[in-house]
Amino acid sequence: MKRQVYFISDSTGITVEALGHSLLSQFQDLKFEYTTLRYLDSLNKVENLCQTINDFSGEARPLIFSTLVDGQLRAKLSKANAHIFDLMGKFLTPLEEILDTQASSALGHTHGPGPDKHYEHRMDAVNYALLNDDGITTRHLDRADIILIGPSRSGKTPTCLYLAMQYGVYAANYPLVEEDFELMRLPDILAKRHAQLFGLSITAERLHQIREVRRPESEYASIKQCQYEVKQIGILYRENRIATCDVTQRSVEEIATRILPHLHLP
Amino acid sequence: MKRQVYFISDSTGITVEALGHSLLSQFQDLKFEYTTLRYLDSLNKVENLCQTINDFSGEARPLIFSTLVDGQLRAKLSKANAHIFDLMGKFLTPLEEILDTQASSALGHTHGPGPDKHYEHRMDAVNYALLNDDGITTRHLDRADIILIGPSRSGKTPTCLYLAMQYGVYAANYPLVEEDFELMRLPDILAKRHAQLFGLSITAERLHQIREVRRPESEYASIKQCQYEVKQIGILYRENRIATCDVTQRSVEEIATRILPHLHLP
Repeated sequence: MKRQVYFISDSTGITVEALGHSLLSQFQDLKFEYTTLRYLDSLNKVENLCQTINDFSGEARPLIFSTLVDGQLRAKLSKANAHIFDLMGKFLTPLEEILDTQASSALGHTHGPGPDKHYEHRMDAVNYALLNDDGITTRHLDRADIILIGPSRSGKTPTCLYLAMQYGVYAANYPLVEEDFELMRLPDILAKRHAQLFGLSITAERLHQIREVRRPESEYASIKQCQYEVKQIGILYRENRIATCDVTQRSVEEIATRILPHLHLP
Repeated sequence: MKRQVYFISDSTGITVEALGHSLLSQFQDLKFEYTTLRYLDSLNKVENLCQTINDFSGEARPLIFSTLVDGQLRAKLSKANAHIFDLMGKFLTPLEEILDTQASSALGHTHGPGPDKHYEHRMDAVNYALLNDDGITTRHLDRADIILIGPSRSGKTPTCLYLAMQYGVYAANYPLVEEDFELMRLPDILAKRHAQLFGLSITAERLHQIREVRRPESEYASIKQCQYEVKQIGILYRENRIATCDVTQRSVEEIATRILPHLHLP
Protein backbone atom coordinates (compact mmCIF):
# COMPACT_ATOMS: atom_id res chain seq x y z
CA MET A 1 0.00 0.00 0.00
CA LYS A 2 1.24 3.43 -0.90
CA ARG A 3 1.24 6.12 1.76
CA GLN A 4 -0.27 9.40 0.54
CA VAL A 5 2.12 12.34 0.78
CA TYR A 6 1.16 15.97 0.22
CA PHE A 7 3.65 18.75 -0.42
CA ILE A 8 2.00 22.06 0.33
CA SER A 9 3.25 25.54 -0.40
CA ASP A 10 1.94 29.08 -0.68
CA SER A 11 4.45 29.55 -3.49
CA THR A 12 6.17 27.31 -6.07
CA GLY A 13 6.52 24.27 -3.81
CA ILE A 14 10.07 23.68 -5.02
CA THR A 15 11.55 23.87 -1.52
CA VAL A 16 9.02 21.62 0.15
CA GLU A 17 9.32 19.05 -2.64
CA ALA A 18 13.09 19.01 -2.19
CA LEU A 19 13.08 18.61 1.59
CA GLY A 20 10.18 16.17 1.57
CA HIS A 21 11.79 13.93 -1.04
CA SER A 22 15.05 14.13 0.85
CA LEU A 23 13.43 12.97 4.10
CA LEU A 24 11.39 10.21 2.50
CA SER A 25 14.33 8.95 0.47
CA GLN A 26 15.56 7.65 3.83
CA PHE A 27 12.72 5.11 3.73
CA GLN A 28 13.47 3.38 0.47
CA ASP A 29 11.56 0.22 1.27
CA LEU A 30 8.27 2.08 1.53
CA LYS A 31 6.11 3.33 -1.30
CA PHE A 32 4.69 6.83 -1.39
CA GLU A 33 2.23 8.58 -3.63
CA TYR A 34 3.07 12.25 -3.99
CA THR A 35 0.79 15.21 -4.60
CA THR A 36 2.13 18.76 -4.70
CA LEU A 37 -0.28 21.62 -4.07
CA ARG A 38 1.21 24.98 -4.97
CA TYR A 39 0.07 28.56 -4.48
CA LEU A 40 -2.18 27.59 -1.60
CA ASP A 41 -2.44 31.16 -0.45
CA SER A 42 -5.94 31.62 0.99
CA LEU A 43 -7.92 30.24 3.91
CA ASN A 44 -10.43 28.97 1.42
CA LYS A 45 -7.90 26.89 -0.47
CA VAL A 46 -6.45 25.43 2.72
CA GLU A 47 -9.93 24.63 3.98
CA ASN A 48 -10.76 22.79 0.76
CA LEU A 49 -7.59 20.78 1.12
CA CYS A 50 -8.42 19.84 4.72
CA GLN A 51 -11.85 18.72 3.54
CA THR A 52 -10.34 16.53 0.84
CA ILE A 53 -7.92 15.00 3.29
CA ASN A 54 -10.54 14.41 5.95
CA ASP A 55 -12.71 12.68 3.36
CA PHE A 56 -9.78 10.45 2.48
CA SER A 57 -10.72 6.98 3.54
CA GLY A 58 -7.42 5.11 3.36
CA GLU A 59 -6.09 3.11 6.27
CA ALA A 60 -3.04 5.26 6.94
CA ARG A 61 -3.26 8.97 7.67
CA PRO A 62 -1.48 10.91 4.95
CA LEU A 63 1.75 12.81 5.51
CA ILE A 64 1.71 16.54 4.86
CA PHE A 65 4.89 18.52 4.39
CA SER A 66 4.15 22.22 4.37
CA THR A 67 6.06 25.43 3.85
CA LEU A 68 3.01 27.62 4.41
CA VAL A 69 4.26 30.79 6.04
CA ASP A 70 1.13 32.62 7.14
CA GLY A 71 0.15 31.77 10.73
CA GLN A 72 -3.57 31.64 10.00
CA LEU A 73 -3.10 29.23 7.11
CA ARG A 74 -0.84 27.05 9.23
CA ALA A 75 -3.38 26.99 12.04
CA LYS A 76 -6.10 25.96 9.61
CA LEU A 77 -3.93 23.24 8.11
CA SER A 78 -3.15 21.83 11.55
CA LYS A 79 -6.79 20.77 11.78
CA ALA A 80 -6.43 18.26 8.95
CA ASN A 81 -6.56 14.60 9.88
CA ALA A 82 -2.98 13.94 8.84
CA HIS A 83 0.59 13.88 10.11
CA ILE A 84 1.73 17.43 9.50
CA PHE A 85 5.35 18.45 9.10
CA ASP A 86 5.28 22.19 9.33
CA LEU A 87 8.70 23.16 7.97
CA MET A 88 8.18 26.86 8.60
CA GLY A 89 6.42 26.76 11.97
CA LYS A 90 9.06 24.43 13.36
CA PHE A 91 11.86 26.87 12.74
CA LEU A 92 10.35 30.35 12.53
CA THR A 93 9.55 30.60 16.25
CA PRO A 94 13.08 29.74 17.43
CA LEU A 95 14.49 31.97 14.69
CA GLU A 96 12.36 34.87 15.92
CA GLU A 97 13.77 34.41 19.40
CA ILE A 98 17.38 34.09 18.29
CA LEU A 99 17.16 37.02 15.93
CA ASP A 100 14.98 39.00 18.30
CA THR A 101 12.80 40.00 15.36
CA GLN A 102 9.28 39.20 14.28
CA ALA A 103 9.03 37.12 11.08
CA SER A 104 7.25 39.03 8.35
CA SER A 105 4.86 36.23 7.39
CA ALA A 106 5.26 37.24 3.82
CA LEU A 107 4.56 34.48 1.36
CA GLY A 108 7.40 32.19 0.36
CA HIS A 109 10.27 34.11 -1.12
CA THR A 110 12.69 31.44 -2.22
CA HIS A 111 11.43 31.11 -5.76
CA GLY A 112 8.98 33.97 -5.71
CA PRO A 113 6.83 35.94 -5.62
CA GLY A 114 8.55 37.89 -8.28
CA PRO A 115 12.08 37.70 -9.48
CA ASP A 116 14.72 37.77 -6.74
CA LYS A 117 17.44 40.41 -6.86
CA HIS A 118 19.76 37.82 -8.35
CA TYR A 119 17.23 37.09 -11.06
CA GLU A 120 18.31 39.22 -14.02
CA HIS A 121 21.78 37.91 -13.48
CA ARG A 122 20.64 34.29 -13.58
CA MET A 123 18.63 34.83 -16.75
CA ASP A 124 21.55 36.59 -18.38
CA ALA A 125 23.73 33.63 -17.44
CA VAL A 126 21.22 31.25 -19.08
CA ASN A 127 21.40 33.28 -22.28
CA TYR A 128 25.17 33.24 -22.03
CA ALA A 129 25.22 29.45 -21.67
CA LEU A 130 22.98 29.04 -24.72
CA LEU A 131 25.11 31.40 -26.78
CA ASN A 132 28.40 29.88 -25.70
CA ASP A 133 27.39 26.26 -25.98
CA ASP A 134 29.61 23.80 -27.81
CA GLY A 135 32.00 26.43 -29.11
CA ILE A 136 29.27 28.00 -31.29
CA THR A 137 31.06 31.27 -30.72
CA THR A 138 34.27 31.99 -28.82
CA ARG A 139 33.97 35.76 -28.78
CA HIS A 140 32.71 35.87 -25.20
CA LEU A 141 34.99 33.31 -23.58
CA ASP A 142 36.76 35.98 -21.53
CA ARG A 143 33.51 36.55 -19.70
CA ALA A 144 33.21 32.88 -18.63
CA ASP A 145 33.40 32.02 -14.95
CA ILE A 146 34.16 28.50 -16.14
CA ILE A 147 34.76 26.77 -19.47
CA LEU A 148 33.80 23.10 -19.45
CA ILE A 149 35.62 20.66 -21.64
CA GLY A 150 35.05 16.96 -22.05
CA PRO A 151 34.08 14.34 -24.61
CA SER A 152 30.93 14.85 -26.64
CA ARG A 153 27.87 13.71 -24.59
CA SER A 154 29.57 13.89 -21.22
CA GLY A 155 26.98 16.41 -20.02
CA LYS A 156 28.67 19.74 -20.65
CA THR A 157 25.56 21.52 -21.92
CA PRO A 158 23.07 20.59 -19.16
CA THR A 159 25.73 21.31 -16.54
CA CYS A 160 26.32 24.79 -17.97
CA LEU A 161 22.57 25.43 -18.04
CA TYR A 162 22.14 24.29 -14.45
CA LEU A 163 25.05 26.41 -13.23
CA ALA A 164 23.48 29.39 -14.96
CA MET A 165 19.88 28.84 -13.91
CA GLN A 166 20.54 27.95 -10.28
CA TYR A 167 23.65 29.96 -9.45
CA GLY A 168 23.95 32.66 -12.11
CA VAL A 169 27.30 31.25 -13.20
CA TYR A 170 28.55 32.24 -16.66
CA ALA A 171 29.48 28.82 -18.01
CA ALA A 172 30.70 28.13 -21.52
CA ASN A 173 31.67 24.83 -23.01
CA TYR A 174 34.00 23.89 -25.79
CA PRO A 175 34.18 20.62 -27.66
CA LEU A 176 37.52 18.91 -28.19
CA VAL A 177 37.77 17.36 -31.64
CA GLU A 178 39.62 14.49 -33.24
CA GLU A 179 42.50 16.78 -34.16
CA ASP A 180 43.04 17.84 -30.55
CA PHE A 181 43.28 14.21 -29.51
CA GLU A 182 45.76 13.43 -32.27
CA LEU A 183 47.98 16.42 -31.60
CA MET A 184 47.44 15.86 -27.86
CA ARG A 185 47.38 19.58 -27.37
CA LEU A 186 44.75 21.98 -26.12
CA PRO A 187 43.50 24.32 -28.84
CA ASP A 188 45.15 27.75 -28.47
CA ILE A 189 41.88 29.36 -27.52
CA LEU A 190 41.72 27.12 -24.44
CA ALA A 191 45.43 26.93 -23.63
CA LYS A 192 45.55 30.65 -22.89
CA ARG A 193 42.53 30.37 -20.61
CA HIS A 194 43.88 27.72 -18.29
CA ALA A 195 42.43 29.20 -15.09
CA GLN A 196 38.91 28.98 -16.50
CA LEU A 197 39.08 25.36 -17.67
CA PHE A 198 37.34 22.48 -15.99
CA GLY A 199 37.31 18.94 -17.38
CA LEU A 200 34.52 16.38 -17.23
CA SER A 201 35.71 12.78 -16.97
CA ILE A 202 33.61 9.74 -17.71
CA THR A 203 34.23 6.03 -18.16
CA ALA A 204 34.36 4.70 -21.70
CA GLU A 205 31.57 2.22 -20.90
CA ARG A 206 29.16 4.91 -19.76
CA LEU A 207 30.03 7.20 -22.67
CA HIS A 208 29.45 4.33 -25.08
CA GLN A 209 26.07 3.66 -23.47
CA ILE A 210 24.97 7.30 -23.78
CA ARG A 211 26.16 7.68 -27.36
CA GLU A 212 24.50 4.43 -28.42
CA VAL A 213 21.12 5.92 -27.52
CA ARG A 214 21.96 8.91 -29.67
CA ARG A 215 23.57 7.23 -32.66
CA PRO A 216 23.18 3.48 -32.43
CA GLU A 217 25.95 1.36 -33.89
CA SER A 218 27.92 4.33 -35.17
CA GLU A 219 31.68 4.60 -35.15
CA TYR A 220 31.17 7.62 -32.87
CA ALA A 221 29.35 5.52 -30.26
CA SER A 222 31.60 2.46 -30.51
CA ILE A 223 33.33 1.35 -27.34
CA LYS A 224 36.64 1.56 -29.19
CA GLN A 225 36.19 5.22 -30.07
CA CYS A 226 34.97 6.00 -26.54
CA GLN A 227 37.98 4.26 -25.01
CA TYR A 228 40.31 6.20 -27.27
CA GLU A 229 38.77 9.59 -26.46
CA VAL A 230 38.55 8.93 -22.72
CA LYS A 231 42.20 7.87 -22.63
CA GLN A 232 43.46 10.81 -24.66
CA ILE A 233 41.42 13.37 -22.77
CA GLY A 234 42.62 11.95 -19.45
CA ILE A 235 46.20 12.54 -20.54
CA LEU A 236 45.34 16.04 -21.74
CA TYR A 237 43.78 16.86 -18.36
CA ARG A 238 46.78 15.54 -16.45
CA GLU A 239 49.46 17.11 -18.62
CA ASN A 240 47.73 20.46 -18.47
CA ARG A 241 46.84 20.16 -14.78
CA ILE A 242 43.16 20.77 -15.40
CA ALA A 243 40.74 20.36 -12.48
CA THR A 244 38.27 17.58 -13.21
CA CYS A 245 35.18 15.84 -11.94
CA ASP A 246 34.12 12.29 -12.75
CA VAL A 247 30.55 12.52 -14.04
CA THR A 248 29.95 8.80 -14.61
CA GLN A 249 27.67 8.27 -11.62
CA ARG A 250 26.65 11.84 -11.00
CA SER A 251 23.61 13.96 -11.69
CA VAL A 252 23.89 17.40 -13.26
CA GLU A 253 23.12 18.91 -9.83
CA GLU A 254 26.03 17.03 -8.29
CA ILE A 255 28.42 17.92 -11.10
CA ALA A 256 27.42 21.58 -10.94
CA THR A 257 27.85 21.86 -7.18
CA ARG A 258 31.23 20.13 -7.38
CA ILE A 259 32.33 22.69 -9.96
CA LEU A 260 31.28 25.71 -7.84
CA PRO A 261 34.52 25.83 -5.79
CA HIS A 262 36.51 26.03 -9.03
CA LEU A 263 34.91 29.12 -10.49
CA HIS A 264 37.23 31.61 -12.08
CA LEU A 265 35.82 34.76 -10.55
CA PRO A 266 37.38 37.86 -12.05
CA MET B 1 26.34 43.74 11.40
CA LYS B 2 25.77 40.67 9.28
CA ARG B 3 24.83 37.42 10.97
CA GLN B 4 26.86 34.45 9.74
CA VAL B 5 24.76 31.69 8.25
CA TYR B 6 26.05 28.25 7.28
CA PHE B 7 24.20 25.84 5.02
CA ILE B 8 25.57 22.36 5.56
CA SER B 9 24.92 19.23 3.56
CA ASP B 10 26.41 15.80 2.98
CA SER B 11 25.33 16.16 -0.63
CA THR B 12 24.71 19.04 -3.05
CA GLY B 13 23.30 21.46 -0.48
CA ILE B 14 20.54 22.52 -2.87
CA THR B 15 17.75 21.57 -0.45
CA VAL B 16 19.24 23.20 2.61
CA GLU B 17 19.98 26.38 0.66
CA ALA B 18 16.37 26.51 -0.50
CA LEU B 19 14.79 25.99 2.91
CA GLY B 20 17.31 28.21 4.69
CA HIS B 21 16.80 31.08 2.27
CA SER B 22 13.06 30.61 2.54
CA LEU B 23 13.13 30.86 6.34
CA LEU B 24 15.50 33.82 6.45
CA SER B 25 13.60 35.69 3.76
CA GLN B 26 11.04 36.21 6.51
CA PHE B 27 13.52 38.53 8.21
CA GLN B 28 14.09 41.03 5.45
CA ASP B 29 15.33 43.81 7.70
CA LEU B 30 18.31 41.77 8.85
CA LYS B 31 21.50 41.13 6.96
CA PHE B 32 23.02 37.68 6.61
CA GLU B 33 26.27 36.38 5.24
CA TYR B 34 25.85 32.95 3.69
CA THR B 35 28.34 30.13 3.38
CA THR B 36 27.35 26.77 1.89
CA LEU B 37 29.43 23.73 2.74
CA ARG B 38 28.64 20.77 0.51
CA TYR B 39 29.66 17.12 0.54
CA LEU B 40 30.46 17.25 4.25
CA ASP B 41 30.42 13.50 4.51
CA SER B 42 33.01 12.53 7.10
CA LEU B 43 33.55 13.06 10.82
CA ASN B 44 36.78 14.77 9.99
CA LYS B 45 35.15 17.35 7.77
CA VAL B 46 32.44 18.08 10.33
CA GLU B 47 35.04 18.37 13.06
CA ASN B 48 37.02 20.89 11.02
CA LEU B 49 33.88 22.90 10.51
CA CYS B 50 33.10 22.90 14.25
CA GLN B 51 36.64 24.11 14.90
CA THR B 52 36.27 26.96 12.42
CA ILE B 53 32.97 27.97 13.95
CA ASN B 54 34.22 27.77 17.50
CA ASP B 55 37.17 29.95 16.55
CA PHE B 56 34.77 32.46 15.10
CA SER B 57 35.02 35.53 17.28
CA GLY B 58 31.99 37.58 16.21
CA GLU B 59 29.46 38.85 18.71
CA ALA B 60 26.53 36.77 17.50
CA ARG B 61 26.61 32.99 17.33
CA PRO B 62 26.21 31.87 13.74
CA LEU B 63 23.15 30.06 12.45
CA ILE B 64 23.66 26.60 11.00
CA PHE B 65 21.07 24.96 8.78
CA SER B 66 21.95 21.35 8.17
CA THR B 67 20.60 18.45 6.15
CA LEU B 68 23.25 16.04 7.38
CA VAL B 69 21.61 12.64 7.54
CA ASP B 70 24.11 10.44 9.35
CA GLY B 71 23.47 10.34 13.11
CA GLN B 72 27.14 10.47 14.04
CA LEU B 73 27.79 13.51 11.89
CA ARG B 74 24.73 15.23 13.35
CA ALA B 75 25.89 14.48 16.88
CA LYS B 76 29.31 15.92 16.11
CA LEU B 77 27.80 19.05 14.57
CA SER B 78 25.60 19.62 17.59
CA LYS B 79 28.75 20.40 19.57
CA ALA B 80 29.46 23.52 17.52
CA ASN B 81 29.01 26.83 19.30
CA ALA B 82 26.14 27.92 17.06
CA HIS B 83 22.36 27.85 16.72
CA ILE B 84 21.76 24.63 14.85
CA PHE B 85 18.70 23.93 12.75
CA ASP B 86 18.86 20.23 12.06
CA LEU B 87 16.38 19.80 9.23
CA MET B 88 16.79 16.04 9.10
CA GLY B 89 16.98 15.23 12.82
CA LYS B 90 13.89 17.29 13.52
CA PHE B 91 11.74 15.23 11.21
CA LEU B 92 13.37 11.83 10.82
CA THR B 93 12.56 10.65 14.35
CA PRO B 94 8.83 11.39 14.15
CA LEU B 95 8.80 9.96 10.61
CA GLU B 96 10.37 6.76 11.87
CA GLU B 97 7.63 6.44 14.46
CA ILE B 98 4.80 7.20 12.07
CA LEU B 99 6.13 4.92 9.36
CA ASP B 100 7.24 2.32 11.87
CA THR B 101 10.48 1.95 9.94
CA GLN B 102 14.09 2.81 10.65
CA ALA B 103 15.54 5.58 8.45
CA SER B 104 18.38 4.26 6.34
CA SER B 105 20.81 7.08 7.17
CA ALA B 106 21.99 6.98 3.62
CA LEU B 107 23.50 10.22 2.44
CA GLY B 108 21.22 12.83 0.92
CA HIS B 109 19.31 11.45 -2.02
CA THR B 110 17.42 14.43 -3.35
CA HIS B 111 20.00 15.54 -5.86
CA GLY B 112 22.40 12.67 -5.46
CA PRO B 113 24.41 10.60 -5.00
CA GLY B 114 24.04 9.46 -8.51
CA PRO B 115 21.32 10.15 -10.97
CA ASP B 116 17.78 9.54 -9.68
CA LYS B 117 15.51 7.17 -11.55
CA HIS B 118 13.86 10.15 -13.18
CA TYR B 119 17.23 11.38 -14.35
CA GLU B 120 17.59 10.08 -17.93
CA HIS B 121 14.14 11.40 -18.55
CA ARG B 122 15.02 14.87 -17.29
CA MET B 123 18.18 15.01 -19.40
CA ASP B 124 16.30 13.85 -22.45
CA ALA B 125 13.77 16.62 -21.81
CA VAL B 126 16.60 19.18 -21.64
CA ASN B 127 17.86 18.00 -25.02
CA TYR B 128 14.33 18.17 -26.34
CA ALA B 129 13.93 21.76 -25.12
CA LEU B 130 17.20 22.78 -26.79
CA LEU B 131 16.24 21.09 -30.05
CA ASN B 132 12.71 22.49 -30.09
CA ASP B 133 13.54 26.02 -29.05
CA ASP B 134 12.15 28.95 -30.96
CA GLY B 135 10.65 26.84 -33.72
CA ILE B 136 14.12 25.71 -34.93
CA THR B 137 12.44 22.51 -35.94
CA THR B 138 8.78 21.51 -35.76
CA ARG B 139 9.22 17.84 -36.51
CA HIS B 140 8.90 16.80 -32.88
CA LEU B 141 6.03 19.01 -31.76
CA ASP B 142 3.71 16.03 -31.35
CA ARG B 143 5.94 14.84 -28.54
CA ALA B 144 5.59 18.12 -26.59
CA ASP B 145 3.85 18.08 -23.21
CA ILE B 146 3.47 21.81 -23.73
CA ILE B 147 4.20 24.33 -26.48
CA LEU B 148 4.87 27.83 -25.18
CA ILE B 149 3.98 30.82 -27.28
CA GLY B 150 4.47 34.47 -26.50
CA PRO B 151 6.27 37.59 -27.70
CA SER B 152 9.99 37.42 -28.32
CA ARG B 153 11.89 37.88 -24.98
CA SER B 154 8.94 36.97 -22.76
CA GLY B 155 10.94 34.10 -21.24
CA LYS B 156 9.85 31.10 -23.31
CA THR B 157 13.30 29.54 -23.58
CA PRO B 158 14.38 29.62 -19.91
CA THR B 159 10.91 28.44 -18.87
CA CYS B 160 11.17 25.45 -21.20
CA LEU B 161 14.63 24.64 -19.89
CA TYR B 162 13.49 24.85 -16.28
CA LEU B 163 10.45 22.66 -16.91
CA ALA B 164 12.74 20.10 -18.51
CA MET B 165 15.56 20.20 -15.96
CA GLN B 166 13.42 20.21 -12.83
CA TYR B 167 10.36 18.22 -13.87
CA GLY B 168 11.32 16.26 -16.98
CA VAL B 169 8.65 18.07 -18.99
CA TYR B 170 8.99 18.04 -22.78
CA ALA B 171 8.53 21.71 -23.51
CA ALA B 172 8.82 23.29 -26.94
CA ASN B 173 8.37 26.92 -27.84
CA TYR B 174 7.35 28.61 -31.02
CA PRO B 175 7.77 32.25 -31.95
CA LEU B 176 4.87 34.21 -33.36
CA VAL B 177 5.97 36.58 -36.10
CA GLU B 178 4.78 39.84 -37.59
CA GLU B 179 2.67 38.01 -40.14
CA ASP B 180 0.76 36.11 -37.45
CA PHE B 181 -0.09 39.39 -35.75
CA GLU B 182 -1.24 40.96 -38.99
CA LEU B 183 -3.38 38.02 -40.06
CA MET B 184 -4.47 37.62 -36.43
CA ARG B 185 -4.41 33.90 -36.88
CA LEU B 186 -2.41 31.13 -35.27
CA PRO B 187 -0.02 29.45 -37.71
CA ASP B 188 -1.49 26.14 -38.91
CA ILE B 189 1.18 24.18 -37.12
CA LEU B 190 -0.07 25.58 -33.81
CA ALA B 191 -3.77 25.76 -34.56
CA LYS B 192 -4.00 22.01 -34.89
CA ARG B 193 -2.21 21.55 -31.55
CA HIS B 194 -4.53 23.62 -29.43
CA ALA B 195 -4.45 21.32 -26.39
CA GLN B 196 -0.68 21.69 -26.11
CA LEU B 197 -0.54 25.49 -26.35
CA PHE B 198 0.21 27.78 -23.46
CA GLY B 199 0.60 31.54 -23.80
CA LEU B 200 2.94 33.84 -21.91
CA SER B 201 1.57 37.32 -21.29
CA ILE B 202 3.61 40.34 -20.33
CA THR B 203 3.04 44.08 -20.07
CA ALA B 204 4.31 46.23 -22.93
CA GLU B 205 6.37 48.30 -20.46
CA ARG B 206 8.26 45.28 -19.13
CA LEU B 207 8.77 43.83 -22.61
CA HIS B 208 10.13 47.16 -23.80
CA GLN B 209 12.51 47.24 -20.83
CA ILE B 210 13.84 43.72 -21.52
CA ARG B 211 14.24 44.29 -25.25
CA GLU B 212 16.02 47.61 -24.70
CA VAL B 213 18.81 45.77 -22.88
CA ARG B 214 19.09 43.44 -25.85
CA ARG B 215 18.78 45.87 -28.74
CA PRO B 216 18.83 49.44 -27.44
CA GLU B 217 16.79 52.00 -29.36
CA SER B 218 15.69 49.54 -32.01
CA GLU B 219 12.27 49.47 -33.61
CA TYR B 220 11.96 45.96 -32.13
CA ALA B 221 12.43 47.27 -28.58
CA SER B 222 10.31 50.41 -28.98
CA ILE B 223 7.37 50.82 -26.63
CA LYS B 224 5.14 51.23 -29.66
CA GLN B 225 6.12 47.87 -31.14
CA CYS B 226 5.81 46.19 -27.74
CA GLN B 227 2.35 47.66 -27.19
CA TYR B 228 1.28 46.45 -30.62
CA GLU B 229 2.52 42.90 -30.10
CA VAL B 230 1.14 42.63 -26.57
CA LYS B 231 -2.27 43.82 -27.72
CA GLN B 232 -2.44 41.53 -30.74
CA ILE B 233 -1.22 38.49 -28.88
CA GLY B 234 -3.75 39.11 -26.12
CA ILE B 235 -6.53 38.98 -28.68
CA LEU B 236 -5.06 35.84 -30.23
CA TYR B 237 -5.00 34.15 -26.82
CA ARG B 238 -8.57 35.12 -26.06
CA GLU B 239 -10.03 34.26 -29.44
CA ASN B 240 -8.33 30.88 -29.41
CA ARG B 241 -9.06 30.24 -25.73
CA ILE B 242 -5.43 29.60 -24.91
CA ALA B 243 -4.46 29.17 -21.26
CA THR B 244 -2.06 31.92 -20.21
CA CYS B 245 0.14 33.12 -17.40
CA ASP B 246 1.24 36.69 -16.81
CA VAL B 247 5.03 36.61 -16.53
CA THR B 248 5.61 40.30 -15.88
CA GLN B 249 6.43 39.98 -12.18
CA ARG B 250 7.30 36.31 -12.09
CA SER B 251 10.46 34.26 -11.96
CA VAL B 252 11.04 31.34 -14.28
CA GLU B 253 10.41 29.00 -11.31
CA GLU B 254 7.03 30.61 -10.72
CA ILE B 255 6.05 30.55 -14.38
CA ALA B 256 7.08 26.91 -14.72
CA THR B 257 5.17 25.75 -11.65
CA ARG B 258 2.08 27.64 -12.80
CA ILE B 259 2.28 25.86 -16.14
CA LEU B 260 2.52 22.36 -14.60
CA PRO B 261 -1.26 21.92 -14.14
CA HIS B 262 -1.74 22.61 -17.86
CA LEU B 263 0.48 19.88 -19.23
CA HIS B 264 -0.82 17.97 -22.20
CA LEU B 265 0.02 14.48 -21.02
CA PRO B 266 -0.59 11.89 -23.72
